[in-house]
Amino acid sequence: MSGSSVTSKVLALLAAFDAQHLEITLSELARRAGVSVPTAHRRAAELVEWGALERTATGRYRIGLRLWEVGSLAPRAPGLREAALPFMEDLYVITRQNVQLAVRDDIELVFVERIAGRLAVPVLTRVGGRFHLHATGVGQVLLAHAPPQVQEVVLGEPLPRYASGTITDPDALRRELAEVRKRGYAVSSRAVTEDATSVAAPVRDGSGEVVAAVSIVVEAATAKPRELAPYVLTAAQGITRALRARPSSSE
Amino acid sequence: MSGSSVTSKVLALLAAFDAQHLEITLSELARRAGVSVPTAHRRAAELVEWGALERTATGRYRIGLRLWEVGSLAPRAPGLREAALPFMEDLYVITRQNVQLAVRDDIELVFVERIAGRLAVPVLTRVGGRFHLHATGVGQVLLAHAPPQVQEVVLGEPLPRYASGTITDPDALRRELAEVRKRGYAVSSRAVTEDATSVAAPVRDGSGEVVAAVSIVVEAATAKPRELAPYVLTAAQGITRALRARPSSSE
Repeated sequence: MSGSSVTSKVLALLAAFDAQHLEITLSELARRAGVSVPTAHRRAAELVEWGALERTATGRYRIGLRLWEVGSLAPRAPGLREAALPFMEDLYVITRQNVQLAVRDDIELVFVERIAGRLAVPVLTRVGGRFHLHATGVGQVLLAHAPPQVQEVVLGEPLPRYASGTITDPDALRRELAEVRKRGYAVSSRAVTEDATSVAAPVRDGSGEVVAAVSIVVEAATAKPRELAPYVLTAAQGITRALRARPSSSE
Repeated sequence: MSGSSVTSKVLALLAAFDAQHLEITLSELARRAGVSVPTAHRRAAELVEWGALERTATGRYRIGLRLWEVGSLAPRAPGLREAALPFMEDLYVITRQNVQLAVRDDIELVFVERIAGRLAVPVLTRVGGRFHLHATGVGQVLLAHAPPQVQEVVLGEPLPRYASGTITDPDALRRELAEVRKRGYAVSSRAVTEDATSVAAPVRDGSGEVVAAVSIVVEAATAKPRELAPYVLTAAQGITRALRARPSSSE
């Protein structure tokens, strides 16, 4: 994309916001978007008028309700989420643990839904947040079923360590991915934080392609992954069935 | 906003999508955005490159994962949602009924979260969907606590009837809103569909302002609103407390 196109400048204003920058001043907005203050001011005013941005009482900018509404129309995340939520609620009601749903975006995963058990082990995820594929249960499921070229990119790059159980050796990861495909689900223990274990299973669309992964995240010290697997596999199958039943997509 | 500004043309491409138009062709995109096909093609390519739009296997356009991610940063909807979800889950676990969360946007409401009981009465709402304020429990709560000028606009316009219980007389609605403020919660029966009753309570932010409404929607024939009210009021209070405890907003 040409760095100077107007479209890219408009999009750069939106990209100035992230989880650490939910509400920012005009000068921050201009700096983070890489445009002059007068340009940021003029474009931001148009975005505010449309509802893509909102201004707070103190004059800061934030992402607006209307952009959230338009984003909610993305078929991949909220469409999937709508199909998955009842089954995720079932998992939560049965286990009272954290339940997560993620999709792959190139070599990362994006969490599209999360039910956080209030008494369950704390997890780092945020809806809309991204993470590496190699360290989480959902990531390993998504990577195990990704096209070979995606797997090679991930296996060819450094695999950061987050906790004592993170797989950082490419050959070990390759063996684990084969195991995930064979076993039908992933178990990732002390791989993101020292106190959490996740059990994850694949969700498929009508064509049989893996389009998401659902997981349950529990206390590592007391986790019994084999006992959790039937719940997660059953919920994943329910979501798969719900996706098959949806009005046919144009894909 | 100047109809000819480039920003507005970019935004018009995004506004071409709605719940009935999740995936559209280039010619539909151009027509719905009010631009020429070549302009739509060029701008859409930039939006695809950034991730605001995606192309399907058949070449149609849809809202992309990245726009959903940026939209997820809107403090009003997903921030509120994150604070509210544990309490909504509690309501769902206790009652197994539909649980809804809505905010007011000018003279309409927007549903920001919904837990749909799989065995509960069907409801029409969709996350990101809009509705009139006068007919639903959450809408009556939001309208009862809206600034007087907002109330006057709503009361001065026709109040569409959806079902036998919809309040369509402005004076009756005015009395009902006073009752909602006095009683502390709203009861709306057979007002949207013939078979549903909702009980809704206000959620306040740290300054005491009503920023959202939470409701439970049950079968009208067997509904006991007075028995449901304590659950909804308690959940609303929990969300209010969670909002107060959040890192101070700049508002």
